[in-house]
Amino acid sequence: MTRVSFLAGATGPWSIERIEAIRGETLAQATALARVESEGEIVPAGRAVWTLSGVRSHERYLERAERERLARQQEDLGRPGSRRAALIPIHKRPTWWQLAQDERRELFEGRSRHIAIGSSYLPAIARRLYHSRDLGGPFDFLTWFEFADEDASAFDELVGRLRETEEWRYVDREVDVRLRR
Amino acid sequence: MTRVSFLAGATGPWSIERIEAIRGETLAQATALARVESEGEIVPAGRAVWTLSGVRSHERYLERAERERLARQQEDLGRPGSRRAALIPIHKRPTWWQLAQDERRELFEGRSRHIAIGSSYLPAIARRLYHSRDLGGPFDFLTWFEFADEDASAFDELVGRLRETEEWRYVDREVDVRLRR
Repeated sequence: MTRVSFLAGATGPWSIERIEAIRGETLAQATALARVESEGEIVPAGRAVWTLSGVRSHERYLERAERERLARQQEDLGRPGSRRAALIPIHKRPTWWQLAQDERRELFEGRSRHIAIGSSYLPAIARRLYHSRDLGGPFDFLTWFEFADEDASAFDELVGRLRETEEWRYVDREVDVRLRR
Repeated sequence: MTRVSFLAGATGPWSIERIEAIRGETLAQATALARVESEGEIVPAGRAVWTLSGVRSHERYLERAERERLARQQEDLGRPGSRRAALIPIHKRPTWWQLAQDERRELFEGRSRHIAIGSSYLPAIARRLYHSRDLGGPFDFLTWFEFADEDASAFDELVGRLRETEEWRYVDREVDVRLRR
């Protein structure tokens, strides 16, 4: 299982433009960030201001037809034109996690169109989801996005639309970290 | 999030009757086992022969109607008459985890009747599922069962039926640890 650590501090390939708490407590200010993926345990850099860890785990809601459509549309991370990135860690309320699988799926896609909204910004906005709930950290998900300068306003629109959904009423902590390289 | 550690060694409230590899590598022999739940990090006992860790996480397949039915039927752990227990850690093949959510659900319940089979042994066989896949340990799930002496053969039947399902073709490691107190 691929693990990830996001290490925020004074050095790293991405410059942090701003760290903004959308809901709940913010993360400490830092100037640079590294996203480190590894197949084994990651030993965090000693000088990090904060570290967030997660895993690239299996899909929790995506159905086969949706995944095939996404696979045709989406592009991978690391495109040369992707000079901008965002890290958006979120935590959901206990009431979300107490819902049954079919209730969460219905809220996630049936009523909130989470997949449909994200898809409408493909391939411009590349995305990778990391799970961290079972790891016991402060967030349930760490989502990483990469896009070009000219798609920055489309990205603002994307996150704005998600934040208006019924699913987002279950989000009780969200931090928006914007980056540039 | 409640964490669990199963500590196998020379001491613990449960005596290990046998440790049997059903598929793949076994676990080392030991004579006693403790199941320790905690809301924080668990510091494993220094003398454990082996330790398996997991979390009580949210439901991954159970739908609302199924959960309500289970809640009415099942009994909790720790019943005075439950003199027997089993710990069954399993690991599933990568091909399982590469399936989409609807494909896994269809295999799990639609074709393998996992919930239905387990339900038909309620309330005799009490059960608690711990998730460990995202934690990066050697197993994906650690399932703990408790039952009375007179239900031991029903328990054998239950695990026998599950092992014949299509879902179980995706299991590439399974160890069956039987206990008594």
